[in-house]
Amino acid sequence: MLRTHTCGELRLENVGTEVSLTGWVQRIRDKGGMIWIDLRDRYGITQLMLEENQTAPEVIETARALGREFVVQVTGTVIERKSKNPNLPTGDIEIQTQSLTVLNPAKLPPFLIEDDTDGGDELRMKYRYLDLRRNSVRKNLELRHRMAQHTRIYMDAQEFIEVETPVLIKSTPEGARDFVVPSRMNPGEFYALPQSPQTFKQLLMVSGFDRYYQIVKCFRDEDLRADRQPEFTQIDCEMSFVEQEDILQMFEGLIRHLFKMVKGIELGEVPRMTYADAMRFYGSDKPDTRFGMQFVELKGTFDTVDLTSGKNFGVFDAAELVVGINVPGAAGYTRKQIDELTEWVKRPQIGAKGLVYVRYNEDGTIKSSVDKFYSEEDLKHWVVAFQAKPGDLMLIISGDAAKARKQLNELRLEMGSRLGLRKPDEYKVLWVLDFPLLEWGEEEGRWFAMHHPFTSPKPEDIPLLDSNDNIKLGAIRANAYDMVINGTEVGGGSIRIFNRDLQAKMFSLLGFSDEEAKAQFGFLMDAFEYGAPPHGGIAFGFDRLCSLFGGADSIRDFIAFPKNNSGRDVMIDSPSPISQKQLDELSIGVVKK
Amino acid sequence: MLRTHTCGELRLENVGTEVSLTGWVQRIRDKGGMIWIDLRDRYGITQLMLEENQTAPEVIETARALGREFVVQVTGTVIERKSKNPNLPTGDIEIQTQSLTVLNPAKLPPFLIEDDTDGGDELRMKYRYLDLRRNSVRKNLELRHRMAQHTRIYMDAQEFIEVETPVLIKSTPEGARDFVVPSRMNPGEFYALPQSPQTFKQLLMVSGFDRYYQIVKCFRDEDLRADRQPEFTQIDCEMSFVEQEDILQMFEGLIRHLFKMVKGIELGEVPRMTYADAMRFYGSDKPDTRFGMQFVELKGTFDTVDLTSGKNFGVFDAAELVVGINVPGAAGYTRKQIDELTEWVKRPQIGAKGLVYVRYNEDGTIKSSVDKFYSEEDLKHWVVAFQAKPGDLMLIISGDAAKARKQLNELRLEMGSRLGLRKPDEYKVLWVLDFPLLEWGEEEGRWFAMHHPFTSPKPEDIPLLDSNDNIKLGAIRANAYDMVINGTEVGGGSIRIFNRDLQAKMFSLLGFSDEEAKAQFGFLMDAFEYGAPPHGGIAFGFDRLCSLFGGADSIRDFIAFPKNNSGRDVMIDSPSPISQKQLDELSIGVVKK
Repeated sequence: MLRTHTCGELRLENVGTEVSLTGWVQRIRDKGGMIWIDLRDRYGITQLMLEENQTAPEVIETARALGREFVVQVTGTVIERKSKNPNLPTGDIEIQTQSLTVLNPAKLPPFLIEDDTDGGDELRMKYRYLDLRRNSVRKNLELRHRMAQHTRIYMDAQEFIEVETPVLIKSTPEGARDFVVPSRMNPGEFYALPQSPQTFKQLLMVSGFDRYYQIVKCFRDEDLRADRQPEFTQIDCEMSFVEQEDILQMFEGLIRHLFKMVKGIELGEVPRMTYADAMRFYGSDKPDTRFGMQFVELKGTFDTVDLTSGKNFGVFDAAELVVGINVPGAAGYTRKQIDELTEWVKRPQIGAKGLVYVRYNEDGTIKSSVDKFYSEEDLKHWVVAFQAKPGDLMLIISGDAAKARKQLNELRLEMGSRLGLRKPDEYKVLWVLDFPLLEWGEEEGRWFAMHHPFTSPKPEDIPLLDSNDNIKLGAIRANAYDMVINGTEVGGGSIRIFNRDLQAKMFSLLGFSDEEAKAQFGFLMDAFEYGAPPHGGIAFGFDRLCSLFGGADSIRDFIAFPKNNSGRDVMIDSPSPISQKQLDELSIGVVKK
Repeated sequence: MLRTHTCGELRLENVGTEVSLTGWVQRIRDKGGMIWIDLRDRYGITQLMLEENQTAPEVIETARALGREFVVQVTGTVIERKSKNPNLPTGDIEIQTQSLTVLNPAKLPPFLIEDDTDGGDELRMKYRYLDLRRNSVRKNLELRHRMAQHTRIYMDAQEFIEVETPVLIKSTPEGARDFVVPSRMNPGEFYALPQSPQTFKQLLMVSGFDRYYQIVKCFRDEDLRADRQPEFTQIDCEMSFVEQEDILQMFEGLIRHLFKMVKGIELGEVPRMTYADAMRFYGSDKPDTRFGMQFVELKGTFDTVDLTSGKNFGVFDAAELVVGINVPGAAGYTRKQIDELTEWVKRPQIGAKGLVYVRYNEDGTIKSSVDKFYSEEDLKHWVVAFQAKPGDLMLIISGDAAKARKQLNELRLEMGSRLGLRKPDEYKVLWVLDFPLLEWGEEEGRWFAMHHPFTSPKPEDIPLLDSNDNIKLGAIRANAYDMVINGTEVGGGSIRIFNRDLQAKMFSLLGFSDEEAKAQFGFLMDAFEYGAPPHGGIAFGFDRLCSLFGGADSIRDFIAFPKNNSGRDVMIDSPSPISQKQLDELSIGVVKK
């Protein structure tokens, strides 16, 4: 090694030791008689000291010629610092420099290598190798490393076998768009990159592997949003001879282990909520449970007493659902503030027609925007329903049930943010259970699998599969579950179908002809006939999980070399054209519209 | 869980316990009054027992209807066996069956689920999920799991950070053929799948990550041989501020750790050999050092005394090299056996013109196929050169030096095999060092990088880069190293260039124009200007390493879902055609010749 120690490890007990260090020049302070250099590597920063008349003149000369980010090797003696720096682990010592060698000079970086950088997004991505030098970015990737490490430690201890499934697989029409790879040896034919190793992990269960896991790259050719990447990483898992409860216990255990080992947080038991309750009380299948403000229905689709009708307020009378939240301590909101909130929910992204408010003043009086229609007596019933206290503000949305819930969900999250109730360093984990099996595609006029076509219906709901009644089909619940942290879905899975006939029925419900089902998934249905065990599993979005643990919103900061919103890696300038020779060998051509 | 225990864990101390087991029916023995069932899962086999008049009649009926590979759940009491089976960890006990539920019936598998199966290769691959049920195949993948586990334990302990590098990268003309992925969002442009994360790991060093590793899928679109797969796995590593010696120590340590933890073998220090010596003494850069028979030159390219010329044997007189091996104890080979060996080396795969033998008989007499030209006195000098003992057989090949070495290498390996000296459970690990930097491509009429274009020449050889003399260029040694186990290259790496000018010179030597170098690797050369540290690394072929540890020849048995020699997955029937809609979206078309 070109060094005896890293820049992070020297302490007072090393005083007197001759050492060699290597690293990057972070900062130089030249006070004439004395020069101090902060030398940085992955492990920390150590201060080098040079002194006129004490350090050899040529060493001082070399030091004076150094620039930011030069790579140097230094030898010297560890000495105690006169003015110690308690903010630095190595702050008690410095190096009395004897020799200084420039291993590689450096041009001035295009942006500051500091936590608060002056580099914009595009520039930082083009020079990602410099961006990765920044402490904050490197710490994210170190966190990711620890997350992977501790995931494996847990899974290994639970006797899961890590199996690598293939990356060059087969394109399937169900689900998102595939990336494909032309096969040179099989002209006109293509591999696809996996959106998940779903069928392979199920086959491993048929093979008797009993417990499988993999931290694995998956691919989806979708139009990208800020938090999506064309390639992403999953913690992918499957178990045999299990029921839903076993999976919940096992992976609650994983998340508890990760919180404990990586964040030092004791998580406790993970609460559970049905999909139906999540929609009813939060208007979302991934509620943020760091704060309350559960939905209260004044007129609803559940068996709630209607507290709104018959008072000549046409809007509520015509509404399928009248639903609100009680914002604690917000009765002081001014008319202006409430108007602004009303405009906020009326923006096209939210799409509400309006916002009704009821102010429960500190003095016990009630003031609302619908005083014309509802007496104080009427509104008192609302106050009771909302369990409001003096000083609270009730915000109410009405209309089509599904739309109103979605709108109020947005408003609830916004109010949570405004009131500072969504703290990035507080963690609320939740299981959402009993998802519907099927989802109606309005545009396509057919059923889609809400999770995926291999998800098992709840045994008691299986008879409904034979119904021709869309209401009944829509009511079929699946043995499917999502894990939600702070309002973000971090994982999801299901108990799988392991019976050929049930799987065939499922494909047929989803509009596959027998031939299509056989061509796409024949191998899996065949496998079910050769002794398939009951099985189920889960997959966690690893990038997302890391960003949550890191308290950040974007997954991009937790990926070493991410792509931008057009799927480009601007550093290596990819994708890029390939040669005609390559196209010819692959039996393909470019056909631009 | 549908079980209380696995099929591998019950022992005498569990006698009396009520248990539930799940698994596959391996075997049924129906003796009329008694029925025994071997129940199998990943963890072992447990014997179930049913007894007429003691077990409920409907349970016996269910048992009699079972077939091989049915999936069942059973409950019962652990009892001591009357006739114990010492070959089975659970052989002291059996289960007195109380209930028996068929979880899933099974069709008769198309081949026997046993170590010695009657299934041919194609059939086993089509039903790989059944093939994976076989003990021998599953054990291979369990070995692979342990190899990955212990690799990570070692690397983590050495402070390497696991970083995931991208799978969708950029096509480069240097090296093997790339798999490419059309980009929908960038019509006419393509990603490439990585042949290795080489440039990314070097950039991580520029980023100051100091120590990086990854167990990572790589891709190469080559015509496949039995031991090649289009997708394969590497243990990929890189370190900063190192010299070659540091890398050798670190990764010798990894291999020692793996041998100890996975095989229980204490490896000791790994011997080293220069590339020049490997070629001289074994005619190969990956010598199998489990046995001797080093090459002896009777007339050579090194400073050996010529023991063959001037005796009117035209073949040797015209030869650039006369080289042989001494086969201990083989003097008894009959003329017929030697003729057969001669035919063996003359086959087109080997391509020798002939084979000269010298028999050093037990009685001290010498008999050779060139007695006409060489006196017993002459041959005695050969015997001395070969350090032969009475009873040995010398086999000699001559001709063009490079070809003769290659041919004798094949013969040496063949003799090693025939004499049983290449034992699969004996392990000889070797470093081969000082590889040439450049390799002349006869066909292309230009230099190629022997390792890759990022490999650093030995500092003392750098001046030779400016030579226009092909002999001198060919003599430049690289700071490159291979690890060889039992004659198989399992890993290789190098100290890298970290200076922009040297890298540019290297590209220019390899025939890149400045523009091409900039277009392909500009980002890397730019990075070298912003403070790149000295660095180097290594990559191990993980599939191959696993197969060696498993004592097997083919890597295919150590990959869960391998592809066949035409790159097809016959189980899922991939690659396959994709729809016109998909092609249109990707702006490509199929152009068959």
